[in-house]
Amino acid sequence: METATACAPVAVIHAGAGTFGQDLRAQTEQVDRFLREVLDRVGGMLEQGDDAVAASVCAVSMMGSVELFNAGLGSALCSDGAAEMSAAVMRGSDRAAGAVAGLRNAEHPISAALCLLEDRQVLMIGAAADRHAKACGVQQRPNDFFVTPRQRARLAAGADPDRGTVGAVCLDSRGTLAAATSTGGIRGQPPGRVGDTPLIGAGTWADQNVAISCTGDGEAFIRAGAARYAAALVAGGSSVDAATAAALTEVGAVGGHGGLIALSAAGDVAMPFTTPVMPRGSWTAGRPAEVFVGG
Amino acid sequence: METATACAPVAVIHAGAGTFGQDLRAQTEQVDRFLREVLDRVGGMLEQGDDAVAASVCAVSMMGSVELFNAGLGSALCSDGAAEMSAAVMRGSDRAAGAVAGLRNAEHPISAALCLLEDRQVLMIGAAADRHAKACGVQQRPNDFFVTPRQRARLAAGADPDRGTVGAVCLDSRGTLAAATSTGGIRGQPPGRVGDTPLIGAGTWADQNVAISCTGDGEAFIRAGAARYAAALVAGGSSVDAATAAALTEVGAVGGHGGLIALSAAGDVAMPFTTPVMPRGSWTAGRPAEVFVGG
Repeated sequence: METATACAPVAVIHAGAGTFGQDLRAQTEQVDRFLREVLDRVGGMLEQGDDAVAASVCAVSMMGSVELFNAGLGSALCSDGAAEMSAAVMRGSDRAAGAVAGLRNAEHPISAALCLLEDRQVLMIGAAADRHAKACGVQQRPNDFFVTPRQRARLAAGADPDRGTVGAVCLDSRGTLAAATSTGGIRGQPPGRVGDTPLIGAGTWADQNVAISCTGDGEAFIRAGAARYAAALVAGGSSVDAATAAALTEVGAVGGHGGLIALSAAGDVAMPFTTPVMPRGSWTAGRPAEVFVGG
Repeated sequence: METATACAPVAVIHAGAGTFGQDLRAQTEQVDRFLREVLDRVGGMLEQGDDAVAASVCAVSMMGSVELFNAGLGSALCSDGAAEMSAAVMRGSDRAAGAVAGLRNAEHPISAALCLLEDRQVLMIGAAADRHAKACGVQQRPNDFFVTPRQRARLAAGADPDRGTVGAVCLDSRGTLAAATSTGGIRGQPPGRVGDTPLIGAGTWADQNVAISCTGDGEAFIRAGAARYAAALVAGGSSVDAATAAALTEVGAVGGHGGLIALSAAGDVAMPFTTPVMPRGSWTAGRPAEVFVGG
């Protein structure tokens, strides 16, 4: 999708749809500041000519390297007290995709997904996926690394459900779109449960028209085929606003709530959600980043 | 989706898109006979008022209980010599779905998927999915049960790629659609690799308009979001013929080949494929079953 005229790059991120619980109220400023940092970094990359895959993976890695969000280091814990993580990345120009589910050791699950982007395989699961990531040079950690005191306490207390999932969609200066999503799943989920995040077409999607990253009730997004449905509507001529609204209607029809971020090849952005909050932000070349955290 | 007037039930099955290799040439009659048996059994169930989920799961179980097909007992083997199996089932009326990936012990992976249909979880993976299936009463087998001399020889010889996957889509007398798919994956695949079969919206889909089961190059079907795309087109007014052709065009655009079976709520059937063969058949109440095996 290289074009003679350079596009104005765009980056959009989310940090999970959910409730405006005690946890987020206490961290509103921290979350706001961190999302601005992510957009500054990723915006800088895109301005320097980095591609949409690198930028979206960087955004997701950053959000997975702090305890503020339910991905990577901040992952919610399974019922057995372990962290199991999933992630996916997709490039719109050729629909190359990489995804991993049920990782217990990759420090950055999105990096493990990135390893598969140029591979014959798209999706790998469990210990084999961790081994594949290790062989690709992805930093490995014992599972205890992810079992933070904060998440241990939340599991023990039966706290508010964690806002799920972090994600990013980017448009680079060559006009290529990409989407990346990473999650620690649902607090207390049975080991082996996988939500929509690593499922191409459910929680993550990119083609030549649109890039999408979802968050919310994972099972409902799977049963709605949410991301692929929105993309099919965009391919049929719908705006990203109309397409994402229709996808959330499908999610609602199977009893789910959540949100998604979508970015079109023309740079149009939609960030709808049906939960009380979805911390999110966007950056377009030459304009200050916009970040929304509270309800 | 109960209606006052009973629908004429329909069943459609496939036994994998692929080449018309030596293996299939030698077994053409056996495959033809077996697919007729499956349609007879399933047609009988539907005529007696059984629902579409039960019928499609029965069809897939039957095809997974013989060595003729790449699912259940006939599963292709991974590079490490083990069998890893995946399956999914979806009900169109409420989009309930159950799916499993990377099973090594469930005798009928489609039964393991069925266990999740009424659960909160949609997708479970690996050993945890096998344990969940066991807890639900699904017969467990040591992995060696699936490691047949035939498949061991094929792995050692680097034989023709196995025709992938078996699937069924059914419409019951109450007008409910369902889809079920089961696979042993690709011969020689790395353990942990998962294709399109258990991914709702990629290889398996059912809603109130259409039920779909796919087979072929799994990664291409994932990157095409094949089943969900076809369903979105049907929801938008396309015929199942047009929608499935468009989905296979998307699969081809990312370099893949394969086929799919689709059945609409009106009883319209499409069974297109871009490989040399896709053994397949259909049954409609009051008419003799039709089966196509050879090229």
